[in-house]
Amino acid sequence: MSTYPETFQGYAIDNSTNWNKSKLTSYAPKAFEANDIDIEIECCGVCGSDFHTVKGNWWELRSLVVVGHEIVGKVVKVGPSVTHYKLGDRVGVGAQARSCLNCVRCKRDNEPYCKAAVFTYNSAYPDGYISQGGYASHVRVHEHFVFPLPEGIKSEHAGPLMCGGLTVYSPLKRFLERVRDTNKKYGEEDVTVGIVGIGGLGSMAVQLAKALGYTKVYALSRGDSKKADALKMGADGFITTGEKGWAESHQDTFDFILNCASSISELDLNAFLSTLKFEGTFSSVGLGPANESFSVSAGSFIGNRSSMTSSGLGSRAECIEMLNLVVEKGVIPWVEEVPISETSVNEVLTKCGKGEARYRYCLTNFHEAFQTGKN
Amino acid sequence: MSTYPETFQGYAIDNSTNWNKSKLTSYAPKAFEANDIDIEIECCGVCGSDFHTVKGNWWELRSLVVVGHEIVGKVVKVGPSVTHYKLGDRVGVGAQARSCLNCVRCKRDNEPYCKAAVFTYNSAYPDGYISQGGYASHVRVHEHFVFPLPEGIKSEHAGPLMCGGLTVYSPLKRFLERVRDTNKKYGEEDVTVGIVGIGGLGSMAVQLAKALGYTKVYALSRGDSKKADALKMGADGFITTGEKGWAESHQDTFDFILNCASSISELDLNAFLSTLKFEGTFSSVGLGPANESFSVSAGSFIGNRSSMTSSGLGSRAECIEMLNLVVEKGVIPWVEEVPISETSVNEVLTKCGKGEARYRYCLTNFHEAFQTGKN
Ligand SMILES: NC(=O)c1ccc[n+]([C@@H]2O[C@H](COP(=O)([O-])OP(=O)(O)OC[C@H]3O[C@@H](n4cnc5c(N)ncnc54)[C@H](OP(=O)(O)O)[C@@H]3O)[C@@H](O)[C@H]2O)c1
Ligand SMILES: NC(=O)c1ccc[n+]([C@@H]2O[C@H](COP(=O)([O-])OP(=O)(O)OC[C@H]3O[C@@H](n4cnc5c(N)ncnc54)[C@H](OP(=O)(O)O)[C@@H]3O)[C@@H](O)[C@H]2O)c1
Ligand SMILES: [Zn+2]
Ligand SMILES: [Zn+2]
Ligand SMILES: [Zn+2]
Ligand SMILES: [Zn+2]
Repeated sequence: MSTYPETFQGYAIDNSTNWNKSKLTSYAPKAFEANDIDIEIECCGVCGSDFHTVKGNWWELRSLVVVGHEIVGKVVKVGPSVTHYKLGDRVGVGAQARSCLNCVRCKRDNEPYCKAAVFTYNSAYPDGYISQGGYASHVRVHEHFVFPLPEGIKSEHAGPLMCGGLTVYSPLKRFLERVRDTNKKYGEEDVTVGIVGIGGLGSMAVQLAKALGYTKVYALSRGDSKKADALKMGADGFITTGEKGWAESHQDTFDFILNCASSISELDLNAFLSTLKFEGTFSSVGLGPANESFSVSAGSFIGNRSSMTSSGLGSRAECIEMLNLVVEKGVIPWVEEVPISETSVNEVLTKCGKGEARYRYCLTNFHEAFQTGKN
Repeated sequence: MSTYPETFQGYAIDNSTNWNKSKLTSYAPKAFEANDIDIEIECCGVCGSDFHTVKGNWWELRSLVVVGHEIVGKVVKVGPSVTHYKLGDRVGVGAQARSCLNCVRCKRDNEPYCKAAVFTYNSAYPDGYISQGGYASHVRVHEHFVFPLPEGIKSEHAGPLMCGGLTVYSPLKRFLERVRDTNKKYGEEDVTVGIVGIGGLGSMAVQLAKALGYTKVYALSRGDSKKADALKMGADGFITTGEKGWAESHQDTFDFILNCASSISELDLNAFLSTLKFEGTFSSVGLGPANESFSVSAGSFIGNRSSMTSSGLGSRAECIEMLNLVVEKGVIPWVEEVPISETSVNEVLTKCGKGEARYRYCLTNFHEAFQTGKN
């Protein structure tokens, strides 16, 4: 049982070899600071990064760790300097918990790239405290990284938008603005995007790309089992990248490719680059295990002057913008709700690791599991 | 002896195993078309691509091949549809000999990326003729790919500008325009570029970057033997990439890195990316052997939202622009003149392959070697 405010409770992994053996555990929150907010959690989405983290695919666990960074809940405590929120507000938290808010990156709405960034879990605060995430009773975060949730969005849909949604929204939006500037010069209207890897991020990317106004949105998946769903999500076309010759028959097709796959072991970068239009961009938000990499030479880019880049999370400003768009366009993420428990946490992490999520798990029933929500 | 106009003469390589055993050879020129021009060659620069080509580093020789694509000479024949030139004009030819001039890439001054591009040597014309380059008595090229040379530039300096100069000018110019648009938004002035690999292209890139108005130009070389020269060329700083820790001490330094190295075997892409400012770009004009590649994961780009791209040659419009800038700013490429002969061709190719050019060889005395220049 949570003895909030002294301790929080959460489903913790103690070691990467036990990555799918979570244990309900009590732990002390970070020191409470003047801009901090405590949130009593209602539900939490399950991101591919939760799997990579507990598996130790990027780096070792820094301590016993509670993952989860697609958090929705209610404000139950506000620090003396908090200005955006009051007790009782329904709010969300994504994958970032802190930044300096003072450097040039922070000042230009690029806080995910702040050199002092602290992420929502398995990341060190300046005092050494290792952050803990949202498969938990509560979370404590700086108010800048707490987002106001419009009434029109159900909590179980809002959760997955906090990391997955925002992470794809940011590069989709930034690219679209840039390419429209270029297109103006030539009177072109069409902007075609390919979304690679139709999991949690990929499915939301298809929906958000349509909402943002990309002219044509293609879903690219290794097999064809997701075709019907992708078209229902709003995709204008579907491509099976597991089929030989798919790239040859799609030369000069995409202005932008957003890779959302959780592994690049079955992906051929040269094939993707060859399907870009002149000066098109391949951007990856998908982050495979640290030991996976693409092989590239300058020659890979030279035929169409294409480029490769990557993107991490999104800014507070972008999150608010995205939530407005979601309400305005009636976007509803494809979510499977799963009541939280040791068993279900282990199960969703396992399925997520196998790429079986269709398309996003959201852990629910937190009030019962943690005996919270009483007042 | 050249029996022009029936045959041309040139120093040809018959096979990649004989890559530095050129032989003076006669061969038939391509069929003469209405927009073609014949040029009696005066001198020709030696590009790193000449070495890669004869060595078979990219693909096999398509026939006996005469390399050389930094050509300067005199117009001796013009087709009936030629409008830009008349007999006797001093002109230059670079690495491209033809494009469709009709596709969207051609129409927007991106003819090096035309899908119908024919390069100056070892490249097939629609009728199957394999193009032959400039270590030769004459060359026959479509007038669009023949550039007018201003009086202020000596032929032996103009040669190396036709491929090496133009190839670095194009991405330097395009990047500078783009970054200035972004900087305007934030009132920033500084644009810092790093030039990697101080050979023929790299030395001209240092000079042209200064001429274009980059605020700070750094030369990056594997060792420190070129430091004094690079500073004389106008570099504001010099970095030895062979020294451990160079990247760590240059984080957040470059808006743009232009890689001009002829091999990437000793280069670490992650180190270069880590020295870029937020949203900086690493572009490579250097084209190593086809079997060399960088290893990259999405994670390599995520810290600073950097990107990787490449660039090939430049357009006719850019070449004319570059020549004007060269005259206006008094840029003089660092060229070592070498009278052409079988022995000297073999020697410069060998030295170029070892990265020993300081900084560009230009083969000269063509009139004596081919007994041309009589009228
Ligand atoms: N950059 C950031 O800031 C950021 C933020 C959040 C998440 N991420 C990363 O984004 C990736 C996707 O997360 P997610 O939550 O969407 O995961 P997910 O729901 O598990 O979806 C991953 C998708 O990747 C594809 N995939 C799985 N295994 C693959 C393999 N071996 N090779 C190629 N493709 C494979 C599958 O799509 P198909 O079946 O359609 O091929 C799968 O549906 C993860 O790497 C995660 O860590 C990054
Ligand atoms: N993209 C295009 O359109 C285009 C056009 C022309 C040429 N190119 C290519 O550009 C490259 C440079 O041509 P260039 O004529 O300037 O050649 P170059 O004069 O031989 O210069 C190459 C420079 O690369 C560096 N280098 C040599 N070996 C290296 C190695 N093993 N690892 C790392 N660096 C090495 C050296 O610089 P440091 O000693 O300073 O390290 C050397 O001075 C070639 O690959 C050529 O094919 C491309
Ligand atoms: Zn996430
Ligand atoms: Zn900051
Ligand atoms: Zn060249
Ligand atoms: Zn064309």
